[in-house]
Amino acid sequence: MLPKTASFSFELESYLCDFNGRATLPLIGTFILQAATNHAQKRGFGFDSMSASGMAWVLSRLSIEMTEYPEHNSCIRVETWVEAVANYFTRRCFRIINSNEITLGHALSIWAAIDLNTRQPVDIPTACPELKDYVETDKSCPISSIARIPPLKEANPADAYIVRYSDIDINRHMNSIKYIEHVLNLFDIEMFNQNQIRKFDINYLAEGIFGDKIELYMQPPAGTSEYLVDSRKGADSVCRSRIIWQTIDPQAIRSASSQQQ
Amino acid sequence: MLPKTASFSFELESYLCDFNGRATLPLIGTFILQAATNHAQKRGFGFDSMSASGMAWVLSRLSIEMTEYPEHNSCIRVETWVEAVANYFTRRCFRIINSNEITLGHALSIWAAIDLNTRQPVDIPTACPELKDYVETDKSCPISSIARIPPLKEANPADAYIVRYSDIDINRHMNSIKYIEHVLNLFDIEMFNQNQIRKFDINYLAEGIFGDKIELYMQPPAGTSEYLVDSRKGADSVCRSRIIWQTIDPQAIRSASSQQQ
Repeated sequence: MLPKTASFSFELESYLCDFNGRATLPLIGTFILQAATNHAQKRGFGFDSMSASGMAWVLSRLSIEMTEYPEHNSCIRVETWVEAVANYFTRRCFRIINSNEITLGHALSIWAAIDLNTRQPVDIPTACPELKDYVETDKSCPISSIARIPPLKEANPADAYIVRYSDIDINRHMNSIKYIEHVLNLFDIEMFNQNQIRKFDINYLAEGIFGDKIELYMQPPAGTSEYLVDSRKGADSVCRSRIIWQTIDPQAIRSASSQQQ
Repeated sequence: MLPKTASFSFELESYLCDFNGRATLPLIGTFILQAATNHAQKRGFGFDSMSASGMAWVLSRLSIEMTEYPEHNSCIRVETWVEAVANYFTRRCFRIINSNEITLGHALSIWAAIDLNTRQPVDIPTACPELKDYVETDKSCPISSIARIPPLKEANPADAYIVRYSDIDINRHMNSIKYIEHVLNLFDIEMFNQNQIRKFDINYLAEGIFGDKIELYMQPPAGTSEYLVDSRKGADSVCRSRIIWQTIDPQAIRSASSQQQ
């Protein structure tokens, strides 16, 4: 049996980074999903074995919390493990680590498994009995839960987009990370110049498919740095997200970089 | 001195692939740029050494020709070499190879180097003297040139988008691959269901920056499978592309897959 926890390395190519020369949150999200895919695939409960049984994993909630974003041309490791398996959900944790073994952030994800014909959730311990052997009990994740994000009361959408070819993935629905890209596109470049995302939570509620018009409703912060965004198809939410910003402290960035040298 | 030609491996994670379970053209483009970046970086003329001298490489033209798109969960290699260096341009070639050493496609790219202060082209042999030692004379690329794509006469844009945070890269302008994603988003899912892109040419003409409105003008094919798309900022083209489609032959896909087993 392979170890319960595994880690995967990723190189941060310059041109994959944002205008500040650091990894974007969607890029961190991509690496996280890549680590989850590889971890599950190698342990016999990945995309291929699930497809062969007529099932698929569906990401239900994701929370990413970063104290520092990795710099371009650096290498990071994403450590991942299964934290819990219940009847209809499984929880998977992640730790993002730089090449000096400094922890840059954590993530927590909640997954359901669906039957590809009925699109209904399946009982995970029955559908995927090998999963319970990989539950890691010796590790803990500082993100203990991902709250339900409430519906917003805003009347007018801040923006809208149509789901296109580049948004759709192998499951024939909108890619989980693309929702995040569209949400972040609501913010002005000045926001990214002076702030970084400390915490990003997303609840996935329905599937976006090719041609759907998704309207983005944003609740302005009431004296806080916390924004809520509801991505809606007509009257229904396809996902809801919470973005918590923090001011970039140039001193902190400098001291973190010198630590890394 | 490192070998003139180098190759880099990439894994095709399932969820990075399109709804047909194959790599998208923008993903192939991303791997190509990643291979170019790594090849140059390791040989002393990459992003870092150019930045340190106040210069940057600018992609001027790119042509990608694919006979077959790699399947999800497979591994591909991108081989790259510098084919020529002139005063104001350098040409770099690529070969895309699957794990059975079958060539899936080729690409040709033309690059200029600019001074980051003046934004003007610099003389490459003077600015980057080490490059000439790496010109590979023993290899040839089946794509011999990338033609200039003419301006279109269409009066009405087929679509438009605003350049947002997710489109901008470390050079503070629109990422080369993002232009391609937006161009492909013009096509209906039915086009991708029945056809694949045999050849994609793009001429980069100006920079898109945050907040720019880019209008896409598309010339419908005159009885051919060749489309021209002009991406314009006001009256000026930021890039022009030519997309040549071919019908997917299910028989050819089957025989190609069995060859790979």
